[in-house]
Amino acid sequence: MKKGVMRPGHVQIRVLDLEEALKHYVELLGLIEMDRDEQGRVYLKGWTEVDKFSVVLREADQPGMDFMGFKCLDEASVDQLEKDLLAFGCEVETLPAEELKGCGRRIRFKAPSGHDFELYASKEQTGKWGLSNRNPEAWPRGLKGIKATRFDHCLLYGIDLDRTLELFRDVLGFDLAEQVVAPDGKRVAQFLTASMKAHDVAFIDHPEPGRFHHASFFLETWEDVLRAADLISMTDTSLDIGPTRHGLTHGKTIYFFDPAGNRNEVFCGGDYHYPDHEPVTWDADELGKAIFYHDRQLNERFLTALT
Amino acid sequence: MKKGVMRPGHVQIRVLDLEEALKHYVELLGLIEMDRDEQGRVYLKGWTEVDKFSVVLREADQPGMDFMGFKCLDEASVDQLEKDLLAFGCEVETLPAEELKGCGRRIRFKAPSGHDFELYASKEQTGKWGLSNRNPEAWPRGLKGIKATRFDHCLLYGIDLDRTLELFRDVLGFDLAEQVVAPDGKRVAQFLTASMKAHDVAFIDHPEPGRFHHASFFLETWEDVLRAADLISMTDTSLDIGPTRHGLTHGKTIYFFDPAGNRNEVFCGGDYHYPDHEPVTWDADELGKAIFYHDRQLNERFLTALT
Amino acid sequence: MKKGVMRPGHVQIRVLDLEEALKHYVELLGLIEMDRDEQGRVYLKGWTEVDKFSVVLREADQPGMDFMGFKCLDEASVDQLEKDLLAFGCEVETLPAEELKGCGRRIRFKAPSGHDFELYASKEQTGKWGLSNRNPEAWPRGLKGIKATRFDHCLLYGIDLDRTLELFRDVLGFDLAEQVVAPDGKRVAQFLTASMKAHDVAFIDHPEPGRFHHASFFLETWEDVLRAADLISMTDTSLDIGPTRHGLTHGKTIYFFDPAGNRNEVFCGGDYHYPDHEPVTWDADELGKAIFYHDRQLNERFLTALT
Amino acid sequence: MKKGVMRPGHVQIRVLDLEEALKHYVELLGLIEMDRDEQGRVYLKGWTEVDKFSVVLREADQPGMDFMGFKCLDEASVDQLEKDLLAFGCEVETLPAEELKGCGRRIRFKAPSGHDFELYASKEQTGKWGLSNRNPEAWPRGLKGIKATRFDHCLLYGIDLDRTLELFRDVLGFDLAEQVVAPDGKRVAQFLTASMKAHDVAFIDHPEPGRFHHASFFLETWEDVLRAADLISMTDTSLDIGPTRHGLTHGKTIYFFDPAGNRNEVFCGGDYHYPDHEPVTWDADELGKAIFYHDRQLNERFLTALT
Repeated sequence: MKKGVMRPGHVQIRVLDLEEALKHYVELLGLIEMDRDEQGRVYLKGWTEVDKFSVVLREADQPGMDFMGFKCLDEASVDQLEKDLLAFGCEVETLPAEELKGCGRRIRFKAPSGHDFELYASKEQTGKWGLSNRNPEAWPRGLKGIKATRFDHCLLYGIDLDRTLELFRDVLGFDLAEQVVAPDGKRVAQFLTASMKAHDVAFIDHPEPGRFHHASFFLETWEDVLRAADLISMTDTSLDIGPTRHGLTHGKTIYFFDPAGNRNEVFCGGDYHYPDHEPVTWDADELGKAIFYHDRQLNERFLTALT
Repeated sequence: MKKGVMRPGHVQIRVLDLEEALKHYVELLGLIEMDRDEQGRVYLKGWTEVDKFSVVLREADQPGMDFMGFKCLDEASVDQLEKDLLAFGCEVETLPAEELKGCGRRIRFKAPSGHDFELYASKEQTGKWGLSNRNPEAWPRGLKGIKATRFDHCLLYGIDLDRTLELFRDVLGFDLAEQVVAPDGKRVAQFLTASMKAHDVAFIDHPEPGRFHHASFFLETWEDVLRAADLISMTDTSLDIGPTRHGLTHGKTIYFFDPAGNRNEVFCGGDYHYPDHEPVTWDADELGKAIFYHDRQLNERFLTALT
Repeated sequence: MKKGVMRPGHVQIRVLDLEEALKHYVELLGLIEMDRDEQGRVYLKGWTEVDKFSVVLREADQPGMDFMGFKCLDEASVDQLEKDLLAFGCEVETLPAEELKGCGRRIRFKAPSGHDFELYASKEQTGKWGLSNRNPEAWPRGLKGIKATRFDHCLLYGIDLDRTLELFRDVLGFDLAEQVVAPDGKRVAQFLTASMKAHDVAFIDHPEPGRFHHASFFLETWEDVLRAADLISMTDTSLDIGPTRHGLTHGKTIYFFDPAGNRNEVFCGGDYHYPDHEPVTWDADELGKAIFYHDRQLNERFLTALT
Repeated sequence: MKKGVMRPGHVQIRVLDLEEALKHYVELLGLIEMDRDEQGRVYLKGWTEVDKFSVVLREADQPGMDFMGFKCLDEASVDQLEKDLLAFGCEVETLPAEELKGCGRRIRFKAPSGHDFELYASKEQTGKWGLSNRNPEAWPRGLKGIKATRFDHCLLYGIDLDRTLELFRDVLGFDLAEQVVAPDGKRVAQFLTASMKAHDVAFIDHPEPGRFHHASFFLETWEDVLRAADLISMTDTSLDIGPTRHGLTHGKTIYFFDPAGNRNEVFCGGDYHYPDHEPVTWDADELGKAIFYHDRQLNERFLTALT
C-alpha cells in the first residue's frame, strides 16, 4: 500500500442472461445480492466483505469484464494518483458518485494491457454479511452454495506487460510478487499485489488487448474447494479444471465457467508477500507446472477460453 | 464376513526394476519394508496394518498383478471355502506355509475374470508399525512420503463379470456394493465388499482376462490427498488424474503410476456398506461422472492403461 | 458379524421437553425427522442411514436411554440369538412389529451392565436421505446444523463388565477392540464392535447399573468437528469438552449436552478393527490420556454427568 | 503500512536451558536453526520466512521476552520513525548493525505498556528454507514437528493501553483491528496490525508492565493444529488449551508452554483487516467467548501464567 491503493474493490462483469447469472453467482458461488440499479445492474458481495458490494453484473451481448476497481485509503490518495496517472500518460475519466450505487466518485483509466481500471476511496460500508461488528460469531448462518468469502483478484490477458508493470508498480504502488519469464528474458506473466496477498491482479501476455481470463474468489480451506467441486458437478456447471494446486502462488484452486462463459476461480491458501520480498520467478518452460502444479501441463482451454 | 473372508490381505505386484520400485513404494507411497525373501521379493505394509505385510513386489519382465489374497477368520473357514470353490468349479492350488515369509498356507484359484486370488488365515502379526498395542499414540513418527495407511483394494479388468460375481457373492460371501449397468441391463462394473468398506475388490468388464487396473491405498483425509498430489509432482512421478472425487463410492482420490507402469491409487473417505444395503447403481451413460465425479468424463488412460 | 449382528440400529432417548429436544437433535445436530407415533415419540435418522430411523426421542420425567437396538442380518439370526440369550441366562421379551413404526419384531434383554438392548432384523428402508440409489450425488443439499451422518455407538456406565463382555462376545459375536485395565488386572472399560468400527457399544465400570454416558454420531472430517464446535457455541449449547482427540480409538471428537442433560458426541476418524486384531489396551493410570488425548486429564464431568 | 512498518520481524525470548529450548523450538515447533552468536544466542526461523531469522533464544535466569522487532520498508522510514518516536516522548536507543547477526542497525524504544520494541530495515535474506525462488515447489521436505511456517505476532500484558495505542497507531501507523471494551468504556485488550493480518501485536490490560503472554506462529490448516496437538501430547509438552477457536480474530489455535514456561501459540486462519475497516469490538462480559470461542470461559492460566 505504498501509494494508498488498498485492494481490489469491485469488478463489473458482463453476462448474457441476468437471471441465469444470478443463479450462478448467488445460488452456486454464494455471493449475496446487495442491490440493483436503474440500469438493471445487480450488486453482489462475499460475506466477509465490509463494503457494500464487490461484483457488479451487467447484462450485455458479449461476456467479459467491463472494469476492475481498486479501493484507496482516502480521497487525497485518489487525487494524487489521478495526477500520477496523467503524468504517466493515461487518459483519466471521472465517474460521479452514485454512478455505482453506494460508491463515491471513481476515476477510470485504461492500462497498457488494454483493460479498464478504476480507483475510488468511498463506498458504503454495510459490514460483514450476517455478522455484527460487536461480539461477532465465527461465520454467518444461511450462506449458500460455495460460500465464497470475498472477491479476491482478476487474471487478465493482454498486451504490453512491461508498460503495464511500470504503471502498477511505479504509479499505483503495487509489487511484482511472481512472474513467468521466457528463455529470452521476456516476462510473459506478472502477478501484482498491493498488500500481503500473492496477487491482487495478474496479467498474461497475449496478442489481443483487454481480454478477461477469470475473476477469483477466496475460500477458507481445501475442504471448501472440494465442496465447490461437488457443487459444480451437482449443478451441471461447466468445469475447467480442478481441484488442484497452482505452482504460481501455490494456491489450491478450481476453475469453472459462468453461464455466459466467463471463467471463475475459487481458491484457498496461497503464499504471502511483503514489499521486501524478491519476486518469485517461474521459467516459461515450466509453465505447465507453474499453472497446474499437479498435472504439470496446461489444458488448451486455459490459453484460449477468454471473454 | 458371511463366509469367513475378512479383508484384502495382500497383493503381489510385478515391477521391472526393484530398486526403482522401492523408491516409489517406500519413499513416495510411504509403505514400510518388512522383509525380503530368497526369490528377491520385497514385503511391504502400511503403518496401520497389524499383519506383517500386505504388498509383495516381484521383479519381472512385465508389470501387472500376480495375485491378490484375502485373509480369512480361521483355518476352518479356509477348509470350507476350498470345498466350496471346488464345488463352484474352480481349480484350487495349495501353497505351503512360508512360501510367502511369515504367511501360513494359502489356497489359490483363478476367478472367471481371469485373475488369481488366494485365501489364507494365518500371517505373522507384527502389530501396527511404530506403535505399541499398549497406550498407543495417535500415529507413529518417522513415516515417509504419502504415508499410506493400508492396502485397501484392487480394481481389475477382465471377462465374465456375472460368473465372477457369483463366485465372490455366493462362494466367498461378498456383497455387491455398487455396480454400473449398461442400457441393455448388462453389469459392466461391480464393486464388492466383505465388510463395511465400499469395496474390497472391483471388476470392470473388459475383453481381455486378468488385467490389472490399480492397487489402492487408504489415506485419512482430503489434506492427505493434496499432500500426495504435491509429492507426486515434486518427485516427477507420472500422474494419471486427481485430486478428485469418484462418483462410485464417493471416495476422494488420486491416481498415479509406479515406474513399471502399474497404476496406484491413494484415496480417503468413501461410503460404507452393510449387508442389508441395496447395491448402488450407476447407469453406464453416466460412467464419466461415476468414475470422475468432478470432470464428468473419462480420460482415455482410465480405459486403456492396464498392466 | 460372527453371529449375524450387523450394527447399532437405534437408540431410544428420554428427553424432558420434546420441542426443545427436536430443536437440538434436528436443527443443531442435523438429524432428519422421519416420523412420529401415537405415543408421541419422534423418529430421527442421520442422512447416510438407509433404514428409516436410528434415534427415537421419548418425552419423560427423567433423561437417559430406554434401550439400544442392534440390527441383525436376518430373522433366522434373531431366532438363534434369542435361544442363545436364554441359554446365557437372559430374560428375553418380544416386542411386536410396528411397536416402533416401520420396525419388525424386536427381542429385548437386559445386559449384566444393567442396560436394555434389542435385536431385530427388519426395518423399513427409506434409503439415504436426499439421495437416489441410482447415480447418487456425493451428498444431499438442505442438511442442517452439524449434519450428523449416522448414529454410531453408545457409551454406557454400569456394573459387571466381565459378564457383559461374555454376553457380547460369546453370544452376540462382538469383538473386544479396546480396553482399559486397572493395575490389579480388572478391566474398567471395554469397547466392543460387531464390524470394522472401533466401537459399536462401549462400557465403563460404574457402581450403578444402567447409566447412560453418551450417544455418538459420525462426522466425515475434522473440519466438520470444528463446524460442530462453532455451532454449539453459536446456539449457546452446553459444551462438555472438545474439539479434541481420544486416545482410545483415536477418534476426533466433541462432547456436548442436549437440553435434558443427555450427553451427545460427534466425532470423525477412529481406528478400524478386524476380528483377528488383538485388543488395544490402555493402562488405567493413563486413563486421562486414553479419554482425552491432548489434555491428558479427565474433567470431572466425564465421570459424573450421567443420565 | 502507513508509516513504513511492514511486519513483526523478530522476537528475542529468554529461556532457562538452551538445549531444552532448542529441542522444543526446533524438534517440536519445527523452527529451523539458522545461526548462533558469541553471546550464545541461537537464531531460528519458520520455513516460509525470507529473512534470515525471526526468533532469537537467549539463555537467562528468568523466562520472558527481551524485545520484539518490526521490519520497516527502508532505512529512511526508520530515520523518520526515530524522529517521530522522540517527538512522542520515547527514549530511543540505537543498536549497531550485526549486534544481531545478519541484521542491520536497530532502534529500540520502550512502549508505555512496558515492553521493548525495535525497528529495523535491513536483514540478510536467505530465502524460504528449503525452496528455491525459481520454480519453487509447494513446500520443502525435511520439516520437523509442528512445521510452524512463520513467527506471526506476540500478545503482551502491560499497563497504559491508551497511550500504547496512540504510539502504535499515530506514530507507527498500525490499525486497531479488534478490541475488548469494559462496561465503563475502558479498552482492556487491543489487537493491532500493520498489514492485512488480524494482529501483528496485541496488548491486554494488566497492572504490571512488560509481561509476556505468548509468541505465536502460523500454521496453514486446522489439520495442522490437530497434528500440533498430537505432537504436544506425544512429547509430554505442557498444554495450556486447545485445539479451539478464538472469538477475537476467529483464528483456530492451540496454546502450550516451552520448557522455561513461556507460552507459545500455533494457529491458522483468522480474519483479515484493511485500514478502512472499523475495529471489531468485544464486550468484556463476553471475554470468555472472545478468548475461547468454544469453551466460552477463560481458564485461570490465561490470565495469570505470564513470563
